[in-house]
Amino acid sequence: MGKVFSDLSVSADGFATGVGQREDAPFGDIDETWLHGWMFEAGEENRAEVDAIVDSGATIMGRNMFGPVRGEWNRDWRGWWGPNPPYHNDVFVLTHYPRDSLEMEGGTTFHFVTDGIHAALERARAVAGDRDISVAGGARTVNQFLAEGLIDELRLHVTACVLGAGERIFDGVPPQRLERVSVRATSLVTHVTYRPLR
Amino acid sequence: MGKVFSDLSVSADGFATGVGQREDAPFGDIDETWLHGWMFEAGEENRAEVDAIVDSGATIMGRNMFGPVRGEWNRDWRGWWGPNPPYHNDVFVLTHYPRDSLEMEGGTTFHFVTDGIHAALERARAVAGDRDISVAGGARTVNQFLAEGLIDELRLHVTACVLGAGERIFDGVPPQRLERVSVRATSLVTHVTYRPLR
Repeated sequence: MGKVFSDLSVSADGFATGVGQREDAPFGDIDETWLHGWMFEAGEENRAEVDAIVDSGATIMGRNMFGPVRGEWNRDWRGWWGPNPPYHNDVFVLTHYPRDSLEMEGGTTFHFVTDGIHAALERARAVAGDRDISVAGGARTVNQFLAEGLIDELRLHVTACVLGAGERIFDGVPPQRLERVSVRATSLVTHVTYRPLR
Repeated sequence: MGKVFSDLSVSADGFATGVGQREDAPFGDIDETWLHGWMFEAGEENRAEVDAIVDSGATIMGRNMFGPVRGEWNRDWRGWWGPNPPYHNDVFVLTHYPRDSLEMEGGTTFHFVTDGIHAALERARAVAGDRDISVAGGARTVNQFLAEGLIDELRLHVTACVLGAGERIFDGVPPQRLERVSVRATSLVTHVTYRPLR
């Protein structure tokens, strides 16, 4: 059985998004390069970490990571990523509003899960086989999984900035010790991998 | 002129203390070894960082770092550190309540500064000469200095735990980019040094 991992780019104060997410600002009112410049401006140097992010047999994400639509699915939103999303596997989107699965190009299919994170994980396991499962974000979704002890490996990509507001890693997660599995510093980011010990 | 630096041991979620500070629990209701075990259990491995913490010509700290007394100085509190505190220089304690300076053994003298962080920094500079000045804590005090752009080097010692509540580094600090000066991982802690760019 594969492990459950999660990758998040966060500021030095732990924020993975700013406030005010909307269609033309998926990460809210921040300069997104502060958080993700390391992937785009220094991709080669961080190749191993970038590749690992999408190396999974199935993906789980929160509804806000999928898109800016709230409430009922009253428009044909198909994700932020265009016709060929970078996941290339089954992506289980957590939502309170049912919707038919959405087949995209390149092997990505979005499924809409209305019965919670445990159900999503079960469905992800069923399709992932022996491969790992990615809990892709956002921070609120990752925190839900952490709080339930469902994450085996949390990979934080810590960037040198202060955001001050937004969605923060570890919010609502009970006090606990972690195991720090690895640290690698490259020019724009510090990669730190933790394993929860509970 | 020396630089102004600050060292803080923090959890992975950025807390430098728990809640509920009191005389028999200087860091509140947490297992203090989670935050400071790296100094005591693995001191040799972290010798450079431990030595650097007290390598200053003057020290500034918040009143809560000095002690649990609140309001007027209605008892003869002389700090958490016994008769010979580890500072061995002039320590400027930020408080709203005047008190005579307090000479301890080993060269430490506590001065009580009632006119704010800029005044404290000026007095520290006057005695430090060319040496560096340490803003020793707690997090709330460090955040005040950060918010005013007065810290040249912030050295975070990030430990593998989640605390979930307490005083947190960067709270109230305006959004900004930082320069990450260095990263060094030892067995119990990740030392990360930032330089604010404002």
